[in-house]
Amino acid sequence: MPDVGVLSAHLLSVFQKELFTRLAEAGHEHLRPRHGAVMAHIATGGTRASELSDRSGQHKQVIGTLIDELERLGYVTRQPDPADRRAKLVVPTDQGRDQMVQAQRIIADIEGRLASLVGKDRFTEFKQVFEEISRGY
Amino acid sequence: MPDVGVLSAHLLSVFQKELFTRLAEAGHEHLRPRHGAVMAHIATGGTRASELSDRSGQHKQVIGTLIDELERLGYVTRQPDPADRRAKLVVPTDQGRDQMVQAQRIIADIEGRLASLVGKDRFTEFKQVFEEISRGY
Repeated sequence: MPDVGVLSAHLLSVFQKELFTRLAEAGHEHLRPRHGAVMAHIATGGTRASELSDRSGQHKQVIGTLIDELERLGYVTRQPDPADRRAKLVVPTDQGRDQMVQAQRIIADIEGRLASLVGKDRFTEFKQVFEEISRGY
Repeated sequence: MPDVGVLSAHLLSVFQKELFTRLAEAGHEHLRPRHGAVMAHIATGGTRASELSDRSGQHKQVIGTLIDELERLGYVTRQPDPADRRAKLVVPTDQGRDQMVQAQRIIADIEGRLASLVGKDRFTEFKQVFEEISRGY
């Protein structure tokens, strides 16, 4: 039986290939899998870079570089945080929000197929255990 | 509930951080997480590059670059395949085999902790479903 590192790496690889191929077909051809560390964790109303770092598990410097790239590509802007003027929020643009909607549609389709593959109840329990492991590791 | 892409990315990130920190402490400080695509899938007797590509889900060109790096670092050598003289096998060196033993020890420890976290039976079923998803995606 492969270990959880090999299994995660393999699932992430095929998942990202499908997601970013289909996003490219939907007009988001400049996005790369690395940008998922930001786009998968950003809220419509904006999210702080430090929270994007916590939630993705990526170093703050890496997240900063990704935000720079996404700003140049027109997906996010940096704005002052209304709750703390010294802090910045990373806020999706219209193009960023379109990507979020398209990604949610594609991911729902992928997870639906995986649930059919192993059975709906087993898939639900799989995600439940996965989430407990992610929180508790 | 986070999707399977987010969950896989997060687990892979924390898993790799622990594995490569502990490998560095065990004398393998030049290895990087990207080298796992080769080192996690190589057999003691050698493995073809095309099989490393299939099993890791990484493009053949990426695997070729990683083999070059690992050859320079002293972890693998390219040798003619006895079964087909035109083909090459990627074979671990003594240093490569030491890394494989150390990695297995560390990974067994990580998976033991995760099994304690969610319960042994639930962890076994989690890995079973994970493996079916990996094969069937």
